[in-house]
Amino acid sequence: GSARFGLAYNEAETNETRIEQRMRVNITGIAETDAGVKLEARFRLEANEDDHENSISGKGPGAAGFAVSFGGLRVDVGNVSNVLDSGDQVDYYGYGIGFTSFLEANSNFNGPATGFGAGSADATTIKARYTVGDFSASLSYKETRAQARTATTLWSAATGGTSTVVYNDDAVAADEEYQLGLGYTLANGMSLGAVYSDSDIAGDYWVIGLNGTAGAIGYTVMVGDGDNQQDTSISASMNYEVSSATSIRALVADGGMTGADTAYGIGFRHGLGGGVTLAGGVGSDSSSNTKADLGVSFSF
Amino acid sequence: GSARFGLAYNEAETNETRIEQRMRVNITGIAETDAGVKLEARFRLEANEDDHENSISGKGPGAAGFAVSFGGLRVDVGNVSNVLDSGDQVDYYGYGIGFTSFLEANSNFNGPATGFGAGSADATTIKARYTVGDFSASLSYKETRAQARTATTLWSAATGGTSTVVYNDDAVAADEEYQLGLGYTLANGMSLGAVYSDSDIAGDYWVIGLNGTAGAIGYTVMVGDGDNQQDTSISASMNYEVSSATSIRALVADGGMTGADTAYGIGFRHGLGGGVTLAGGVGSDSSSNTKADLGVSFSF
Amino acid sequence: GSARFGLAYNEAETNETRIEQRMRVNITGIAETDAGVKLEARFRLEANEDDHENSISGKGPGAAGFAVSFGGLRVDVGNVSNVLDSGDQVDYYGYGIGFTSFLEANSNFNGPATGFGAGSADATTIKARYTVGDFSASLSYKETRAQARTATTLWSAATGGTSTVVYNDDAVAADEEYQLGLGYTLANGMSLGAVYSDSDIAGDYWVIGLNGTAGAIGYTVMVGDGDNQQDTSISASMNYEVSSATSIRALVADGGMTGADTAYGIGFRHGLGGGVTLAGGVGSDSSSNTKADLGVSFSF
Repeated sequence: GSARFGLAYNEAETNETRIEQRMRVNITGIAETDAGVKLEARFRLEANEDDHENSISGKGPGAAGFAVSFGGLRVDVGNVSNVLDSGDQVDYYGYGIGFTSFLEANSNFNGPATGFGAGSADATTIKARYTVGDFSASLSYKETRAQARTATTLWSAATGGTSTVVYNDDAVAADEEYQLGLGYTLANGMSLGAVYSDSDIAGDYWVIGLNGTAGAIGYTVMVGDGDNQQDTSISASMNYEVSSATSIRALVADGGMTGADTAYGIGFRHGLGGGVTLAGGVGSDSSSNTKADLGVSFSF
Repeated sequence: GSARFGLAYNEAETNETRIEQRMRVNITGIAETDAGVKLEARFRLEANEDDHENSISGKGPGAAGFAVSFGGLRVDVGNVSNVLDSGDQVDYYGYGIGFTSFLEANSNFNGPATGFGAGSADATTIKARYTVGDFSASLSYKETRAQARTATTLWSAATGGTSTVVYNDDAVAADEEYQLGLGYTLANGMSLGAVYSDSDIAGDYWVIGLNGTAGAIGYTVMVGDGDNQQDTSISASMNYEVSSATSIRALVADGGMTGADTAYGIGFRHGLGGGVTLAGGVGSDSSSNTKADLGVSFSF
Repeated sequence: GSARFGLAYNEAETNETRIEQRMRVNITGIAETDAGVKLEARFRLEANEDDHENSISGKGPGAAGFAVSFGGLRVDVGNVSNVLDSGDQVDYYGYGIGFTSFLEANSNFNGPATGFGAGSADATTIKARYTVGDFSASLSYKETRAQARTATTLWSAATGGTSTVVYNDDAVAADEEYQLGLGYTLANGMSLGAVYSDSDIAGDYWVIGLNGTAGAIGYTVMVGDGDNQQDTSISASMNYEVSSATSIRALVADGGMTGADTAYGIGFRHGLGGGVTLAGGVGSDSSSNTKADLGVSFSF
């Protein structure tokens, strides 16, 4: 599990400062057959502040995600990441800014990344990844089947129990999404990857990414575009290890939707030992809103 | 905990094939007094596919079940099985077909079996089982107390906040259910049992069952009838251990409600080691719908 | 975790006797930095009977509570106790009667005590406690930010899908609550404490308490009053250790709201070993309703 708390600032909110709070526990079950096939199942319990209004709540367990792995092959089923979210080939989120990662490398990208969480899902995802030497390929399929709105019968007290059938607006439209990812790691540790996504509703999307480390510096560079955005998106994020405990991060992203502004931010992380990290940052998002945070996170 | 996933087919559904997904975690607390009385409490977290529309979600913790055991006496209280569900005397479910047990020995039976799960319950159940030598007796009492429909106040936005009081249709009718079970195990390991149930709403129900093993063969035979079904129900299920790892199962059930068809199915289970089982089956249910499944299950 | 079950009686209910059932599991994550700062996060899963109608259900995880402690300083953040609930300086609940503590020392007090639980909260609480020698001081701040009612769109089936926007009455009013507690422990182990609370909505409240042990006897005495009650409240509770395993408790409380009656009760606790306790009691609450319970509780 993990937890974090501290202060988060967002210029766009009525109450600009909130007390950020999160506790996360993944419950994971693992089994391995005599032949060495590893099976996993997991779901998540999580508690969060709901918003900037100081209300707090818990949720979960969410839908479960399953995995089967054997040698270089791994298949994920259920409430699991699609290729873009998985990071199998492209590090879509890069080096996030602040202890809440309020700004990430995908800031100005409108890509269809969906992943595991503590909630329900209207779709089931299947993803297969195959790794051989320095090469990897991933393929995901996410199917959403059509669902009608749910009928609820309400009985009016005023009119002596007359019934009215109403719907909440929760109809689900059918959709199919395919994603293909290809990745290659060079001899110097630099990784090059590309993800292509096609879905009935969101159309095409592609992302090309580069990431690696050079001494104390880690970096990601990413370019992407799709039918659901007007301009090509680009981003770069960087992490610099000042010492064994302290690092500085910087990020810039541009492009995307019409009218999107350049997003940028700078932050730091400082390890306090025992799995505890003090981190913070400040930046500006793609709507030119200033955001900042400062807090601690820890794993247990 | 346990988990399973695979494919399940049901001719009766619009989307005939679904990706079956389930993860279950029971959280159990145990204490034992100096005098040797054992107390237990448990509740369950669970995640499932909701239906054949690919949506998936988690639920729980559900209502808790408690147990006190001392010598041959065990008392269960709360969200617990009544006598018919418990299997104390009659194995009501027999050898189920497929990795989801989509067809079980109770297929054509309309018996009032209620048990532990990850949800809430409108009733509290108390069950006592006493075992002495080869003889056992169980008695359960399930009381549902009347509850009125819950009132909800809705404020209309269009008419300036005018309130309307409505009910969801969740009134609960009072009910009392008594069940008595008697069982005897013969010298050759064959068990003979009977359960009688009486409730205000569902009326009488009785079941007589026989089960045991003979070499590599395990079997259950069951007969039952009640006020809530037209014809006497019968069923037989069988398990045959082909090898130490593989078994074949077959099941047939008939009778029950007017118009019910003969249900039958055949399946297999194959242990892969490490608590992992590959299983599948095919059959026809009491509405003559073809069902089938194939998948893995594992415990952790 | 902990669990308890048994019988509880309340004269005021339509169904006077209920089967009391509770299972509680706190999931706690702990980390400690190299410098010795301890961080904690926890949330709770819980199952209960809902009421006297025999329905039972589970809930949680609730909102999380976090704590940072270093030397004599401890800071709690999130879903945590305010000063009055915490017991840092005043033992607001005293020696409760019965295995469900159906009657506690705060019976006739209307003080603003809020604490950790398995539910959500509309406010975030921060509490700091500093202990130095025999002296302790605590300060809490609970901020509730205003929230509008949530809009829900209902689509009428009868009139061809016409939409109506309604609100459930869940608007949240802004509030700020400050609490200050001061406590001192005398050389003979007697503790003297005071808590002062001030909030926008509930106004002022103060409580002064005394508690300690003298041989086999433990006792609490408390006086309090505030803008939200007419008469000054007083209470005394006592625990007498008859033997190493058995104790008897008694409690009396008076004052508070206009028309409140004197509350009183007597109970016992008997340890059965292995963390199991048999307890029960009988009493009369501030509305002169007779209450009683008998049951077991255990921790695991």
